Amino acid sequence: MEKLKKYVSVKDEDHFYHQGAVELLIFNFLLILTILTIWLFKNHRFRFLHETGGAMLYGLLMGLILRYVTKSPDVESGTVYECEKLKSGPSTLLINITNQVYEYQYKREISHHNVNGHQGNSMLQKMTFDPSIFFNILLPPIIFHAGYSLKKRHFFRNLGSILTYAFLGTAISCIVIGLIMYGFVKAMVHIGQLKQWEFHFTDCLFFGSLMSATDPVTVLAIFHELNVDTDLYTLLFGESVLNDAVAIVLTHSISIYSPKENPNAFDAAAFFQSVGNFLGIFAGSFAMGSSYAVVTALISFMHLTKFTKLCEFPMLETGLFFLLSWSAFLSAEAAGLTGIVAVLFCGVTQAHYTYNNLSPDSKMRTKQLFEFMNFLAENVIFCYMGLALFTFQNHIFNPLFIFGALVAVFVARASNIYPLSFLLNLGRKQKIPRNFQHMMMFSGLRGAMAFALASRDTDCPPKQMVFTTALLIVLLTVWVLGGGTTPMLTWLHIRVGVDPDEDLNAKAASQSASNLDKNTTKAESAWLFRIWYGFDHKYLKPLLTHTGPPLTSTLPGWCNPIARLLTSPSAYEDQLKDGDTDYIISNDELTQNYEPSAHIPVPAQGCTGSVQATGKEDIQEGDLGLGGYKLQLQHTACQPQKNSLA
Amino acid sequence: MEKLKKYVSVKDEDHFYHQGAVELLIFNFLLILTILTIWLFKNHRFRFLHETGGAMLYGLLMGLILRYVTKSPDVESGTVYECEKLKSGPSTLLINITNQVYEYQYKREISHHNVNGHQGNSMLQKMTFDPSIFFNILLPPIIFHAGYSLKKRHFFRNLGSILTYAFLGTAISCIVIGLIMYGFVKAMVHIGQLKQWEFHFTDCLFFGSLMSATDPVTVLAIFHELNVDTDLYTLLFGESVLNDAVAIVLTHSISIYSPKENPNAFDAAAFFQSVGNFLGIFAGSFAMGSSYAVVTALISFMHLTKFTKLCEFPMLETGLFFLLSWSAFLSAEAAGLTGIVAVLFCGVTQAHYTYNNLSPDSKMRTKQLFEFMNFLAENVIFCYMGLALFTFQNHIFNPLFIFGALVAVFVARASNIYPLSFLLNLGRKQKIPRNFQHMMMFSGLRGAMAFALASRDTDCPPKQMVFTTALLIVLLTVWVLGGGTTPMLTWLHIRVGVDPDEDLNAKAASQSASNLDKNTTKAESAWLFRIWYGFDHKYLKPLLTHTGPPLTSTLPGWCNPIARLLTSPSAYEDQLKDGDTDYIISNDELTQNYEPSAHIPVPAQGCTGSVQATGKEDIQEGDLGLGGYKLQLQHTACQPQKNSLA
Repeated sequence: MEKLKKYVSVKDEDHFYHQGAVELLIFNFLLILTILTIWLFKNHRFRFLHETGGAMLYGLLMGLILRYVTKSPDVESGTVYECEKLKSGPSTLLINITNQVYEYQYKREISHHNVNGHQGNSMLQKMTFDPSIFFNILLPPIIFHAGYSLKKRHFFRNLGSILTYAFLGTAISCIVIGLIMYGFVKAMVHIGQLKQWEFHFTDCLFFGSLMSATDPVTVLAIFHELNVDTDLYTLLFGESVLNDAVAIVLTHSISIYSPKENPNAFDAAAFFQSVGNFLGIFAGSFAMGSSYAVVTALISFMHLTKFTKLCEFPMLETGLFFLLSWSAFLSAEAAGLTGIVAVLFCGVTQAHYTYNNLSPDSKMRTKQLFEFMNFLAENVIFCYMGLALFTFQNHIFNPLFIFGALVAVFVARASNIYPLSFLLNLGRKQKIPRNFQHMMMFSGLRGAMAFALASRDTDCPPKQMVFTTALLIVLLTVWVLGGGTTPMLTWLHIRVGVDPDEDLNAKAASQSASNLDKNTTKAESAWLFRIWYGFDHKYLKPLLTHTGPPLTSTLPGWCNPIARLLTSPSAYEDQLKDGDTDYIISNDELTQNYEPSAHIPVPAQGCTGSVQATGKEDIQEGDLGLGGYKLQLQHTACQPQKNSLA
Repeated sequence: MEKLKKYVSVKDEDHFYHQGAVELLIFNFLLILTILTIWLFKNHRFRFLHETGGAMLYGLLMGLILRYVTKSPDVESGTVYECEKLKSGPSTLLINITNQVYEYQYKREISHHNVNGHQGNSMLQKMTFDPSIFFNILLPPIIFHAGYSLKKRHFFRNLGSILTYAFLGTAISCIVIGLIMYGFVKAMVHIGQLKQWEFHFTDCLFFGSLMSATDPVTVLAIFHELNVDTDLYTLLFGESVLNDAVAIVLTHSISIYSPKENPNAFDAAAFFQSVGNFLGIFAGSFAMGSSYAVVTALISFMHLTKFTKLCEFPMLETGLFFLLSWSAFLSAEAAGLTGIVAVLFCGVTQAHYTYNNLSPDSKMRTKQLFEFMNFLAENVIFCYMGLALFTFQNHIFNPLFIFGALVAVFVARASNIYPLSFLLNLGRKQKIPRNFQHMMMFSGLRGAMAFALASRDTDCPPKQMVFTTALLIVLLTVWVLGGGTTPMLTWLHIRVGVDPDEDLNAKAASQSASNLDKNTTKAESAWLFRIWYGFDHKYLKPLLTHTGPPLTSTLPGWCNPIARLLTSPSAYEDQLKDGDTDYIISNDELTQNYEPSAHIPVPAQGCTGSVQATGKEDIQEGDLGLGGYKLQLQHTACQPQKNSLA
């Protein structure tokens, strides 16, 4: 008898395994379909429906099929069982059912009004996966890849503008959306569509913060394909990546903001606590991420014996790189910080320091690995967003709210881009032209991050309404704005087919030609940045990588013994071909700073100097671009190498 | 009030997330430590403790720390709650605890005597992960990689012997271990250490089947590093990989074998049902795996338009390759077959057909991706095995049983290798020498698969005893036999530092020199294999890949229109340099078969012909080897390319 029962239970378990396999198979099938479609699109140079839009469309269709074909209501689930003996929910629960003990694992808490939602189709329930899968599995590789593939030079050139858009812009967007939505909510309460207590001002701000994260995938993929003007590309890319990081922390801070009494009243203490929280979490995550990257750089820089470096074992090197980057995410999460932010800055720092120390093989391996993970994760997310429209069972469609949200998103984007561009143009020598501003306005798609943040909490009706609305806005903007990108570029007369490096050189050349005054470019590379750059170039780069001037030349004389110990032998060799000096275009001051002691040949000033230096950096940077490149590796290990762009 | 409660619940959830992050962080830390240690070992050419042994050691130490440092008994878990209303365990359970609804997810069934084991440390419980993680996440990439990196030529050359060891050998081993263990169990019952009803003969056979899976990691990594004689390497590699597949299906069949009444009596019907089950599952999984690979080959072979092939988009190609291979696993699981077996044969078929169609970039990407996944998964498993010795809380250490198991494993290995080698040597022209047999006997480590199979069911005391014993035998054999591999090789005078290709050529040359009779090598490449080879070479290869003779020359005349349509244009170009003919060394018959119609120049017979043909195949095969290579890619896309071995 006992034997027989065991076989039944084995079958039950098998059943669960098979269920899991079927669900994954559905996703695999969707992804395969998406890949084949992308192939078809690429063949026919069809750009009105981008691959992300295609993935969503397939997800939508599959969701429709699952919803209306598989009708198998699970009777058992949906019933609530009483348990008087327990005080709180333990992580595992052992339950005796008809003389057999079953183990149950804690999943989540459900609010009372949501219990009925669980009465539905069990297949749909299983296809609606946990938001923690987004935050712990799908988003980290995407965000890390964004950081790792940042085009450093262009990014740093526009750092000030990017930071302004990302921080100030997101704050503006959040507040504007929050205020407009609060107006709509008030109106809806007035006409009786909503009850006052259901939707607080904090809920509106919450919605505003999550809708402020713009999508770094769809538009940028098209830009990359068309080789749109590099400055525009960099501004949008930098903004949308940092945007996500800011929005995630902002959303967290707002959800923690809890005024003691009336949730609609303004509580200064709670507000400042939230602001402090925001700053603390952001700074902490930043520190956590970059310190892991620095550790990786140090290890990959280390010599174990005189001749053996880690880069002689590419597999170990790649493994270490992957594990330490992942640890940055996990440590931040474990410490109560934001893993996504940590992993973004970890990626940036890895690209800046560690990448230079890797063997050619590992450079390629890490790049391709994260590129691949990014590709898969992105497509899974977009498929899933389409799927969720039909498989999620607690949607609350409120047309007025959705209309309000559309208006709010549009207005917020406008009051982010135009005023900030105006302010930035006051300071920038190279202005952001009108058509760029229109394009940035147009490219304010909402994507995976907005969806993921909204899906994190779908327990009570206001949050469900937020989720439904966010999902619809994502679908709409990706299809409409994503599809309209190519016509819009033509309409706005924005240059396409630009070689990013020639572009920069040309701009630098025209600048140095028109302005003999050296101060012209200084405004762009602000003083704070230049101080940091000098420190980085003189001390950090030589300490952590094989590039840069030898420490012996940058440190004061009395540090010489230590400096000699810490400097990589190849730093001396690289001295002559040091091409890292073009972060800021006018770098003669910096060069002169260490030139007398190090006897580095000063590059010819102005145009030609920049062009030469630029050329080298570009080649190094090519490795980290977004596209699918053909790579050529040299047989010599541990040497920086040149890649040819496809 | 409601607001406040929600924050508490958010905190609770956060706590769960953080817990997960901490556990993963511990694993990451272990892996980083292992990688740094491997680096250290590689530097000092230290071979007495292999990396797998090192990983287990670190896992062991970490387990020790977790066990004795983190003492936080979770009072709640361990208590069994009654639930009269339910008939069976639903997949999700909603429970009302102090007016708050919690959702719980079904995890597994627990037998009554095991409930107390759950009273322990919750940290340890969390570190003991689900066996389904092994079978669904960690093992598939390892097994796929094994199939994908198979050295085809050497494998097919020894196919008969490998199949004999894998199928017949595993069966022998399973029965011998089962019988010996049954003897020990009888003895233990006699002296009162065990009760009769606790351990059936089927349990002994179950133990036998899972202990028959030898480890394809530790010894082979050392062999690869030392470049041990290729035939020995291939025999061991092929045996241990197929071994795993056979053992997994065998274990499943035995656990299904359920005689109606007395479980100790022999039931012919149930036995034949099990045998049929074994054959059915094996064949089904084989078919599933290879058909997915064939689909991949067809897609990658397809031309969408006249000029555009999938291989022009390496990322899409790699993605498709990955997803279809994973789908093979998932489909097999969903269909109730064995995913691991499916994925093994999928890997072999992908390497045989699809690999030839991939672009150079994708060849490298897929190889490196699976190599990397294999590397991580292997190290996770070995770390985890060390960890499990202390974190698993239901160990049953029975010294007599463990001693019996050691004896049984040793005897079973001997009665597998020596008699089968003797039989095989009757048929083989190139005998398996005595020292190879001793080495194969010595290399019978038990590894990840034995552990994974044992961990699948640890519900009742006999299964827990099996698990503990299997774990100890794995630890022991990996440390003792793994560490003793290098001395043993020296002691047995086995050649190391062999170039696999020169080796084969030399052997072929010496054979054709000593035997002028062409029939000498025929015994090795048996007739069945030659028929399949002919079919594969003439029809499948041209149909599925860009290599092989054009179909127009191999198909009968009336098929010409179809043949012309299906043949790749590059097949005609490749006609002259067709180097695929050296699967079986004496291939003149095959060549002659299609030679008159295709006008392929017949290779010079005997020594030189083999050498030339061999040379080319080797270079293609080099891509798929195990080590970390420096790769050089050509800029031309979609052309088979040459890799240099590091």
